[in-house]
Amino acid sequence: VQANHEAKQHAREYNEGMIIEKMRQTINDACPLLPGARILVGVSGGPDSLTLLDGLHQLGYEVIAAHYNHGLRPQAAEDARHVEAIAQHMGVRFILDGSDIAAHASANRMSIEEAARTLRYRFLFDQARRLNCVAVAVGHTADDQVETVLMHFLRGTGLAGLRGMLPCAVMPAWDDHILLLRPLLSVWRVEITAYCSDRSLQPVFDLSNLDTTFYRNRLRQELIPYLQEYNPQVKEVIWRLSHTAAADYELLVDLTQEAWQRSLLSEGLDYVVLSLSQLRGMQAGLLRNVLRKAVGQLRPGLRDIDFSAIERAGGFVHAPPKTRTMDLVAGLHLYVSGDRIFLADQHSPLLLEEWPQLAPGKMHELPVPGRLELSNGWILASQAVDASGIQLEDDPYQAWLDESCLSLPLQVRTRQPGDRFRPLGMEGHSLKLSDFWINEGLPRPARVGWPLVCSQGEIVWIPGFRPAETCRLQQDTRRAVHLFLKRKATIN
Amino acid sequence: VQANHEAKQHAREYNEGMIIEKMRQTINDACPLLPGARILVGVSGGPDSLTLLDGLHQLGYEVIAAHYNHGLRPQAAEDARHVEAIAQHMGVRFILDGSDIAAHASANRMSIEEAARTLRYRFLFDQARRLNCVAVAVGHTADDQVETVLMHFLRGTGLAGLRGMLPCAVMPAWDDHILLLRPLLSVWRVEITAYCSDRSLQPVFDLSNLDTTFYRNRLRQELIPYLQEYNPQVKEVIWRLSHTAAADYELLVDLTQEAWQRSLLSEGLDYVVLSLSQLRGMQAGLLRNVLRKAVGQLRPGLRDIDFSAIERAGGFVHAPPKTRTMDLVAGLHLYVSGDRIFLADQHSPLLLEEWPQLAPGKMHELPVPGRLELSNGWILASQAVDASGIQLEDDPYQAWLDESCLSLPLQVRTRQPGDRFRPLGMEGHSLKLSDFWINEGLPRPARVGWPLVCSQGEIVWIPGFRPAETCRLQQDTRRAVHLFLKRKATIN
Repeated sequence: VQANHEAKQHAREYNEGMIIEKMRQTINDACPLLPGARILVGVSGGPDSLTLLDGLHQLGYEVIAAHYNHGLRPQAAEDARHVEAIAQHMGVRFILDGSDIAAHASANRMSIEEAARTLRYRFLFDQARRLNCVAVAVGHTADDQVETVLMHFLRGTGLAGLRGMLPCAVMPAWDDHILLLRPLLSVWRVEITAYCSDRSLQPVFDLSNLDTTFYRNRLRQELIPYLQEYNPQVKEVIWRLSHTAAADYELLVDLTQEAWQRSLLSEGLDYVVLSLSQLRGMQAGLLRNVLRKAVGQLRPGLRDIDFSAIERAGGFVHAPPKTRTMDLVAGLHLYVSGDRIFLADQHSPLLLEEWPQLAPGKMHELPVPGRLELSNGWILASQAVDASGIQLEDDPYQAWLDESCLSLPLQVRTRQPGDRFRPLGMEGHSLKLSDFWINEGLPRPARVGWPLVCSQGEIVWIPGFRPAETCRLQQDTRRAVHLFLKRKATIN
Repeated sequence: VQANHEAKQHAREYNEGMIIEKMRQTINDACPLLPGARILVGVSGGPDSLTLLDGLHQLGYEVIAAHYNHGLRPQAAEDARHVEAIAQHMGVRFILDGSDIAAHASANRMSIEEAARTLRYRFLFDQARRLNCVAVAVGHTADDQVETVLMHFLRGTGLAGLRGMLPCAVMPAWDDHILLLRPLLSVWRVEITAYCSDRSLQPVFDLSNLDTTFYRNRLRQELIPYLQEYNPQVKEVIWRLSHTAAADYELLVDLTQEAWQRSLLSEGLDYVVLSLSQLRGMQAGLLRNVLRKAVGQLRPGLRDIDFSAIERAGGFVHAPPKTRTMDLVAGLHLYVSGDRIFLADQHSPLLLEEWPQLAPGKMHELPVPGRLELSNGWILASQAVDASGIQLEDDPYQAWLDESCLSLPLQVRTRQPGDRFRPLGMEGHSLKLSDFWINEGLPRPARVGWPLVCSQGEIVWIPGFRPAETCRLQQDTRRAVHLFLKRKATIN
């Protein structure tokens, strides 16, 4: 009997020690805290949160037990008193709050679960701030982690989602500094049950059953047991996947950050400009990550960035230079201009700072030779050249026109109603200018101030796009006008 | 009627065009082949392989249809003739072979599926070599890919396994150069069925039903439909995961390769030496990948490297310097010596080239001052020093002994039966030398030739480990002998 008792005692201590050790290691690996750091612990009174409170207390942290009364069960007030008694017994400070979840849910058109979650986290972080805590700790377990990863897997995810929940994170939605800590992420529910019984912790009920949606409950009660028929160790292997995915993800974030810095040319509140040649030199995976980062920067609220949007953006990067614009996702557009690729809100006025623009309505002269300053450091320049021996380049930033069909000086203006244009190489009728721009994909905000080079009122070159068919060089052309559009810095 | 007919015709052409385009893109993304390259196509006669043959033919490759008669169905010979007729109709060369699968299976203790797979691939690659093909193409589809990823997910995997099958790979087991191509990896089975019907390709039967094991069949027929209840798009999201995982994996491989080169000190057939300080400076994920690479290098056959082994190895890297050895996995051991960490086969003789060794059995003299050359560029050296003001260092490669308890010159020899040793700091009895080495974790092969510094036959210092308690410096020690073990290159 004595030996048996000792064996049990030993098993008990072993399990207790394991859990404490796992908590210690999870915290240390993720975000080492100072010894004795003050932590606000969310304590529903369920087995997970009681274990969390007791474990952190044993690890020497200054814990504060915070209970949120959801008022959803008849015994709710009793539960709160029970948790308070446990905290008192441990010699730990206890705080309490609560509100009418159902009312909040219907007022905000949320599910009960969502409302409960929102109000509870708000309470925890408000109190943590008030009480100068460095972290809020919550009791998610290894089982919860497996369910989360599985849910992400089924709904569609990449490496980021396979990580599941993080052991330590900053959640800007709640606070910019206070950490959200999940020290039980490597502790299984069965271990917790044993711990509570060994440490004589009496849970009130398992909040996780209240907290979870139908989807998650079905996952837990049906899907996981079913998957265990395929592999009895399936929970362990999914948990391990979350662990390795987190480490791999961290590496990729660093790599992406490096690539980002290498390719970023400029950025604003609603636009990002990247180097096309840098993007083109990247491996597919890295390019995808950089593009995802760009979208994430402009649309931080966008939770899962659509896989196909990123694929299309990747295709756009590698498309021939003619492709100039693409609708991407969530009101974002991609534009290409030379080596610059813009990701911008379609209404971004800041974008205009990147493009050659002219004050609308005014007429400017461009002598030959001569130059005209546009906005943002862009310059239009001209020179007369001998037509023989010209090396025509397929460069939208340069044009060569037959001097004999031009009336000099040239004029430069913005669009006018009724403008038409026959691009070089096009047979037959001319196009409406607006149709030409739609075809070429010039972003709408850029059109109003776009410079047009004209002769006797007719457009002969649209800088950055095409010269007119009407003034193309002929076999017998002797003298040509060479036009170019450049950034000031690039003119020697 | 006419309009309806045209709509159907259009839908048909659209589906055909989509499949051809998907194949083209899969090949181009993975491993661009020269136009008209010669490809051996494994054609069972099922819908997948007929689509594969027809599609590659349309893409302009020089295809050769290769059918392997498994002889497992009564209609097998008929099937072969059917495939031959299809190939003839296409104007494509046809080759055929077969053997007694059941006999091969029982002779090699394989399952029928495994034997069929082995013999079929051997046939395909043998013929591809003979016929100067650059690739062998097989008909795995997007559905097969999803099943593979799911199987890996359930059995436990990291990023590598989430990639599923690769669209283009070299399989050294079959050939070092000929590619294994899977152009249908982004084509779904439903598309293939439609394609076969539209192109009037008459499949004989679906080999995949023969080819797959019970596990995979259950996965296909039960698990995937069940998961579709959770997300009707589950196949698509798993397919996408395989796609992004492949790209992310490629990035990590590059990163790991860089880290590997940075930390590799030397390597042999059955050992690898890495820089401990380099490993310690790595992020957890990178360290894990480097360690996995090291194990993979020494045990290329090891299919899945045990997660916990890699975790333990990571712990070993970060353990205090005293921890000298660890059994790892598959007969591999880890040893630490200074900044060098060895991963080696426990029987590796090459390891000895890294350690200080002495020809066993001979006695050498070490005068004070003096030096003695050991193997592999190691040197034992001695000098007499004034005991006052000595800065004792906790460095196993140096020792300071009380000169008055030594009989000079010192002797250096290898172990002898009955050797005992009382390490510095140990109270009471001395240890058997073999027990000391087990405690310290000196790899067994290194023990035979390990140099022992002796005075009058007694061990006074084990270089690289501890001096003896018996000769420790005392309060009244006036002169000491300073001993050190160094690599030649590091002695100034």
